Amino acid sequence: MSAVSSSSKKKRPLSGLGPDPEGLVRPLVRSLAAYVPGEQPKIRGLIKLNTNENPYPPSPKVLRAVRKATDGRLRLYPDPTAEALRASLASLHGCKPENILVGNGSDEILAMLVRCFAEPTGTVPARAVSRSRVQYFTPSYSLYPVLAEAHGAAPHGVPLNPDFGIPSVIQLRRGRRWDFGAALTFVTTPNAPSGRGYGTAELEALCLAMRGVVVLDEAYVDFAGEHALALGLRLPHVLVARTFSKAYSLCAQRVGYCVGHPVLIAALQKIRDSYNVNGLGQVAALATLGDLPYYRRNFARVIQTRDRLSRELTALGFEVIPSQTNFIFAAPPAPPAREWLAALRERKILVRWFSSPGIDRFLRITVGTDAEAAALLRAVRRILRGIHG
Amino acid sequence: MSAVSSSSKKKRPLSGLGPDPEGLVRPLVRSLAAYVPGEQPKIRGLIKLNTNENPYPPSPKVLRAVRKATDGRLRLYPDPTAEALRASLASLHGCKPENILVGNGSDEILAMLVRCFAEPTGTVPARAVSRSRVQYFTPSYSLYPVLAEAHGAAPHGVPLNPDFGIPSVIQLRRGRRWDFGAALTFVTTPNAPSGRGYGTAELEALCLAMRGVVVLDEAYVDFAGEHALALGLRLPHVLVARTFSKAYSLCAQRVGYCVGHPVLIAALQKIRDSYNVNGLGQVAALATLGDLPYYRRNFARVIQTRDRLSRELTALGFEVIPSQTNFIFAAPPAPPAREWLAALRERKILVRWFSSPGIDRFLRITVGTDAEAAALLRAVRRILRGIHG
Repeated sequence: MSAVSSSSKKKRPLSGLGPDPEGLVRPLVRSLAAYVPGEQPKIRGLIKLNTNENPYPPSPKVLRAVRKATDGRLRLYPDPTAEALRASLASLHGCKPENILVGNGSDEILAMLVRCFAEPTGTVPARAVSRSRVQYFTPSYSLYPVLAEAHGAAPHGVPLNPDFGIPSVIQLRRGRRWDFGAALTFVTTPNAPSGRGYGTAELEALCLAMRGVVVLDEAYVDFAGEHALALGLRLPHVLVARTFSKAYSLCAQRVGYCVGHPVLIAALQKIRDSYNVNGLGQVAALATLGDLPYYRRNFARVIQTRDRLSRELTALGFEVIPSQTNFIFAAPPAPPAREWLAALRERKILVRWFSSPGIDRFLRITVGTDAEAAALLRAVRRILRGIHG
Repeated sequence: MSAVSSSSKKKRPLSGLGPDPEGLVRPLVRSLAAYVPGEQPKIRGLIKLNTNENPYPPSPKVLRAVRKATDGRLRLYPDPTAEALRASLASLHGCKPENILVGNGSDEILAMLVRCFAEPTGTVPARAVSRSRVQYFTPSYSLYPVLAEAHGAAPHGVPLNPDFGIPSVIQLRRGRRWDFGAALTFVTTPNAPSGRGYGTAELEALCLAMRGVVVLDEAYVDFAGEHALALGLRLPHVLVARTFSKAYSLCAQRVGYCVGHPVLIAALQKIRDSYNVNGLGQVAALATLGDLPYYRRNFARVIQTRDRLSRELTALGFEVIPSQTNFIFAAPPAPPAREWLAALRERKILVRWFSSPGIDRFLRITVGTDAEAAALLRAVRRILRGIHG
């Protein structure tokens, strides 16, 4: 063997060992935009209102449960099917564990949905484009087209109404862009980044008109007036995605889930990594379900802060979209939103701005604590005085 | 909208709402075997020697670091690029963070490798089958064909030599089954389930003969005499996969990584879920790198137990493959291995048996503590007495 090794080595100059790495990457992957990590600024005293995290910590019971599980058992594999967590979620939602899939955050679940239900475009005839279509409204969660492209499926965005409402089925039929047979359709409800909520009746009407899989992405639903989980349990082609990240203050622990027909859930289980949900994440999520009143009190606080902040920003000349989430989408008065982003950042307040046409006049502001909201309003007033003074 | 909703409902009988869920799943996914979770027996006092976990707990420093990080910060997203962990790994391996990708266990990394480098079969011409090929030796890690099939790529297994050695390049060329241009080739080194180790020189010869991506899957390498990490840093088409699960007693926390050329790593980063590695997992892995002498002492203990267990089983009539891992692959004397599996289980000792032809005469036995090894040997002696007595 060593003879082969040295003879191979002699044939190749040391500087050019092996094939060109660029050529080894699939053309599809080469064509994807490079991943740009979210901003993790290390500025002291910064108020971070840019990533929609919950301002309140997990419940003390959850932290105790995680600390208690931090022992020699970390050497063992976690439960591959998250059995205890699925049983507890099933009891909460009045369904069976077979209706529930748990993921490494809901982001992993969204990626699995694309791989499970949408065909890469080259694998089906061009006339069957619907089988490759990953459909979503614009604006909504910007991850959907990214996931579709990474899979080689066909991302298909259709605009929401100007007020961020979902067009009626009649409007969608007339508009002709909407594909009622799309393999997979994502609906962010309540919507991000607008924060607008949708009624269960209108979501049901949309779902009933669809022939492919519909995913109601309810990442922010705990801050809304109603949820549509029943549609995932009643309609065989509807899945509802949820997460412990935002409402349940567990972003770090990566636990999300989706609820739906056992046939769809079983298909997703087949393509899941065997041990996709880490052990302490399972412990934390399970303990969370054992202390829901703690979280419900925090939802009420966030909603109260949100509604007060919305009123005050409106009074200061902002156009505020009524929010059913833990963030506010608000168009500031002059100067342009992009300049507000910079001006707030100078005052150590980080919010989010999207450059996409149609929404580039808005800022997305996470609802923090009352103290954070007060600091934001002080900064806004100072910026306004600077302009008008 | 509600008018549309109720009219839609009237048209469909309640029992048959929506499309048939079976028809919504991609034919590829329907054709996959249903996922069978690993055995998680709840028998008291069971000695679990079936999943190659480390018998020793994580270091006390690691447990303290995780407990200390279990506070309100769990509400925040983890570092999306695992910057601190990658910097520490880079310093350990004498490379740059750009050479390193961190994953949700090395299983996630193996799945990403398939999606990054192998084409689904329908998307390339039939004559270009190499671009779809996911190649591996048999026997080796049974996950490779599963991942290839889930992606729609072409799994391509080529037998090892009867002694579980890797055929030489000359043998592989003569045998004609091996594809030197396969898009992706996995080599489990040391091998599982045989436990056999491979020299860096023979791995290098194989890598130099390949035109596609080669992954050296070093999940068990800390229990071996040598490792081939340098090949991942020297050859642009070679990646080395590692994990914190086994040697570093962190199965529950799901942290793996791979090392290689920045161009290949950058391609993998593009298709990675943004927050794929949980926060406490990053903390645990980082603290692990700060206490390597603790783990090296445990490697020495496992190797000592392994070598003694190998000798004693050989003396009892087992055919033991020399192991470079934390498990032993051993063919028992009569009765057949399958019956040994049952007989040991009756005595509350769980080992692993594979039904595949060629290896069905072996048991795979994880090296536990000295006490566990002694219990195994006692049970083996009793079973032998039962047969011969």
